[in-house]
Amino acid sequence: MGLLKGKVSVILLVFSLLVVLCASLSVSKEDQQLRLCKEHCRQQRQLDSRQRHQCETACEEYIREKERREQRDEPQSRHDPGKEVMIFEANPQTFVVPNHWDADVVLFVAQGEGTVSLVYTDRRESFNIERGHVMVIPAGVTAYLINKGNNDKLILVKLINPVSNIGKFESFFGPGGDNPESYFNAFSSDILEAAFKTSEDSLKRIFSQQREGAIIRASEEQIKALTHEKGSHWPFGGKGSRDSAPFHLLRQNPRESNDFGSLFEVDSNDYRQLRDLNVAVSFANITQGSMHTPYYNSRATKIAVVLNGKGYFEMACPHINSELREGTVFVVPPSHPFVTVASEDENLEVICFEINAENNHKFPLAGQRNILKNIEKEAKELAFATSAEEVDEVFRNQEEEFFFKGPRQQEHRRGYSII
Amino acid sequence: MGLLKGKVSVILLVFSLLVVLCASLSVSKEDQQLRLCKEHCRQQRQLDSRQRHQCETACEEYIREKERREQRDEPQSRHDPGKEVMIFEANPQTFVVPNHWDADVVLFVAQGEGTVSLVYTDRRESFNIERGHVMVIPAGVTAYLINKGNNDKLILVKLINPVSNIGKFESFFGPGGDNPESYFNAFSSDILEAAFKTSEDSLKRIFSQQREGAIIRASEEQIKALTHEKGSHWPFGGKGSRDSAPFHLLRQNPRESNDFGSLFEVDSNDYRQLRDLNVAVSFANITQGSMHTPYYNSRATKIAVVLNGKGYFEMACPHINSELREGTVFVVPPSHPFVTVASEDENLEVICFEINAENNHKFPLAGQRNILKNIEKEAKELAFATSAEEVDEVFRNQEEEFFFKGPRQQEHRRGYSII
Amino acid sequence: MGLLKGKVSVILLVFSLLVVLCASLSVSKEDQQLRLCKEHCRQQRQLDSRQRHQCETACEEYIREKERREQRDEPQSRHDPGKEVMIFEANPQTFVVPNHWDADVVLFVAQGEGTVSLVYTDRRESFNIERGHVMVIPAGVTAYLINKGNNDKLILVKLINPVSNIGKFESFFGPGGDNPESYFNAFSSDILEAAFKTSEDSLKRIFSQQREGAIIRASEEQIKALTHEKGSHWPFGGKGSRDSAPFHLLRQNPRESNDFGSLFEVDSNDYRQLRDLNVAVSFANITQGSMHTPYYNSRATKIAVVLNGKGYFEMACPHINSELREGTVFVVPPSHPFVTVASEDENLEVICFEINAENNHKFPLAGQRNILKNIEKEAKELAFATSAEEVDEVFRNQEEEFFFKGPRQQEHRRGYSII
Repeated sequence: MGLLKGKVSVILLVFSLLVVLCASLSVSKEDQQLRLCKEHCRQQRQLDSRQRHQCETACEEYIREKERREQRDEPQSRHDPGKEVMIFEANPQTFVVPNHWDADVVLFVAQGEGTVSLVYTDRRESFNIERGHVMVIPAGVTAYLINKGNNDKLILVKLINPVSNIGKFESFFGPGGDNPESYFNAFSSDILEAAFKTSEDSLKRIFSQQREGAIIRASEEQIKALTHEKGSHWPFGGKGSRDSAPFHLLRQNPRESNDFGSLFEVDSNDYRQLRDLNVAVSFANITQGSMHTPYYNSRATKIAVVLNGKGYFEMACPHINSELREGTVFVVPPSHPFVTVASEDENLEVICFEINAENNHKFPLAGQRNILKNIEKEAKELAFATSAEEVDEVFRNQEEEFFFKGPRQQEHRRGYSII
Repeated sequence: MGLLKGKVSVILLVFSLLVVLCASLSVSKEDQQLRLCKEHCRQQRQLDSRQRHQCETACEEYIREKERREQRDEPQSRHDPGKEVMIFEANPQTFVVPNHWDADVVLFVAQGEGTVSLVYTDRRESFNIERGHVMVIPAGVTAYLINKGNNDKLILVKLINPVSNIGKFESFFGPGGDNPESYFNAFSSDILEAAFKTSEDSLKRIFSQQREGAIIRASEEQIKALTHEKGSHWPFGGKGSRDSAPFHLLRQNPRESNDFGSLFEVDSNDYRQLRDLNVAVSFANITQGSMHTPYYNSRATKIAVVLNGKGYFEMACPHINSELREGTVFVVPPSHPFVTVASEDENLEVICFEINAENNHKFPLAGQRNILKNIEKEAKELAFATSAEEVDEVFRNQEEEFFFKGPRQQEHRRGYSII
Repeated sequence: MGLLKGKVSVILLVFSLLVVLCASLSVSKEDQQLRLCKEHCRQQRQLDSRQRHQCETACEEYIREKERREQRDEPQSRHDPGKEVMIFEANPQTFVVPNHWDADVVLFVAQGEGTVSLVYTDRRESFNIERGHVMVIPAGVTAYLINKGNNDKLILVKLINPVSNIGKFESFFGPGGDNPESYFNAFSSDILEAAFKTSEDSLKRIFSQQREGAIIRASEEQIKALTHEKGSHWPFGGKGSRDSAPFHLLRQNPRESNDFGSLFEVDSNDYRQLRDLNVAVSFANITQGSMHTPYYNSRATKIAVVLNGKGYFEMACPHINSELREGTVFVVPPSHPFVTVASEDENLEVICFEINAENNHKFPLAGQRNILKNIEKEAKELAFATSAEEVDEVFRNQEEEFFFKGPRQQEHRRGYSII
């Protein structure tokens, strides 16, 4: 929850000035990808020369943005006052020092168990969290956290939604000392003496001891004292309490489920805290050797983080092709068809934040609910310049709905369809 | 509805960094206009030197933006993640291949008749359209279209509202082949084989035949099969159906009407689909030799497209003066007074999209509802530094309300008032 | 209400591309401040080298923005399509010529008495205003104003909320002549003759007399005629009238009040006109020698204008330290802790516009409602690395709630806490 040095993968909504960018991390051979991406632009015959140029620029921007991101010298996209995703890890038996952000934070607990406490003017609310919980910490609310596990790291995936329309954000530590430095130390000493009606000596005693950083080791007694859930004990009870409580995404009925995978989803209808943010959260567990249908989100931009497993991801317009492994973050802009495939060896778990979720629809492009099945016979003939029977034969063959048996992956095929 | 090569006039909301830009197409002598525009800046005595400089910069930016637009190398304004207007034409007896946009599209049928079909996961909705219909195609919804006319082109004027807050948008073709290239062809062949559970051969047969582009010739039988309105036949009936139906703007009672012209208008109160877009659509038919009152929209930016006729347009601040003819697009920023005049020879038909329509009011500056009539006697005297009687004499003379007899246009006067 | 040459202090929401900027006017020694600001960045140990660099860039951007602002060559921040604050003054017994803005204007009457008239298509509404009134003039609504005072200037503090999402705005004069130049003079004379159905001579008589500018001397009779409140007399009565009426902020019960100061506040719950703007207005009167608690707004950006008195202001992240005097404008971004102190000699009066006010909370960092008091014992120990007793001793000592006795200011201490 702070500016932590743990493993933090950051990716941004990356749009260029001229063209939508499609991004994914951890592509090993970028030059090759750039070449393929541009080649694909050249193949699209409906594009005129200006559009072709834009498509190629999109490919280049994608690579540049990726390089910038890897060098970490420019964490913020210039062109989108954007949401950002962070992966946060706290070691077993640790305490995360109270802090607040100038951003609304949506978090998903990817691993471990702990307790989050939120501090208000009139009360404190504490909630036990575990793998599968989704929670919103509103901007300005001071929060602290313990990892009560003995062995496991507590891992949170966070979506940061800056309050400012410039997209800049930061965290603020009040309790602290030299490291993390307390914001109190930014004020002059006579201000603090007057504010706290106390002596410089007393202030020095409390605002200079902490030098261990934002995540510190806690004793078993401290852990025990801090993990008792106190959400119910607050002075002015009732209103508001339920809102702040985390939502257990993985205890819901999946929206989609078969042998090849499951999809869990929560939006503002289920969890009111997501309403103002216009965000939905979904968790996909794709069975080893399986895939989800090619589909697109009509309005939402998807920011996805791989939690477990390996696989790959393909997207159209411009064509992006990327291997996925634990910690990979990829972004899918609205209305862009894409597909994700799990490796043969292990399930692929992906957590997704869907931004601009209101009135968003998922439109599947294969399987039983394939939207293209709903096109009239004559329209199929005209569009494909072939017989409707031939089209139907292809479009009706897949009897599953959302998750399918994947391509055999003996060899990691990267060849583009040359059909 | 795709990236079509028809006659497409594009203009953008053009604002500069420093000053509001006022834009209009097809001004024949730009150097002269630039000179006049700047001269007008210099005449305004209430401006200090900095403001005068800004005014002149606005004039220059306007010319630069216009040049960029004409060269078509930069379709997107850098400064507004904007709405864009396109004119779309399909020849008689043609079919427009199914496609979707990452944008909400508001369309007005300017000429011809046809049928639009919208494809959802669970249904298809088809609507007959004809001149005067307004319709919204939401982002991500796959749509196709036929022009059933034997002789007339089907002409649509479209306002594109990108979903992305960067203002970038594009269209996506699923059904297709080499041209338009299907987005399926961006995926590798093993992905497609697994998704459709079929062989590479079958895929190749359907995804490689189409080479005719996005608008293709249809036979009479195909036209007939596709023009039967099917809005009522969809599986899960009821809810939603009415929303998608087009709205017949020209069959409403006009908001303003007299011998000199008529104004038809639809906003979200009449047509729910416009609500989220915050857009209103209006159609003005100005009788030959007539004009509308000088007025301004309090909050809305108006994007106007000339459908028929000739005339001219004048706007204040900075002063823009432009001839109008079929296909001209002009933009009027909020609160900027402007006037449009039809030529002596034919009526002038203009379709307008009003962006940011909520709580917008039109404030007329002449005629019976002239707001300046409502100023107190003493305020008139003070403001004009003359007698209230003299002011009233001028402000009360025009007995019409919105459309007036225009200036005699024997000669095309371009002289600025030097009063 | 126009582009007036009176004393106008303008400051903008100043955010840089990379880092939030914290701004305040009238810092006398900027080089010294820059040095201190950067030094503070270097002291923060939790920052890594990239974050430290950003912090220093924030300091530099702040100085640059301040210089730009002082040179007045660039009134608009490039990075925020922003709200702007203006101070408007009209001499005793003057009339402000009717005009409208392409912006919603929230105004606070800081001094004097007068009458504002708003002109609509179907009516006029007039309201008497005096010190303490808050009022909203919607974009596009033509308004005029008299200062009826015999001796006092009428002083308004205005927050300008541009309609355009580019943040550009300007004012438009209809009634006028050469100065202020009427927008009618931008139209060619044949247009005006047709629109008003009158001769060029008549037009010339009314649109060329005024040369005195936007604020002009009024006679006693004119003042008398124009100050009779006419809000109740309008033709179509009822609806709307109450909305436009000003709200008397200083006649409400203060939200906070003790011997050391008072805080008055109005938001959209009390005054509906503020709803769409998402703005709250507050007025703080800090007793001489007193201060308010260090606190932060969770979501709102505060733009503050000093109306009377002297004092100083400190903010954290980056550290900004600024003297305050009449006319100073300072900006506090969301979630940034800050404090304001009145001088020993006189009360400090500050009017604040809080932008993005919805769901905003003020979180006090000292005093009885100090949020840090609500942290558990063990969390205090862990966070401060000291005993909870020592922490409580400091955090519970201040028995006041929002306003406190300030630091003794014999000498103007600028030394930073080196605790």
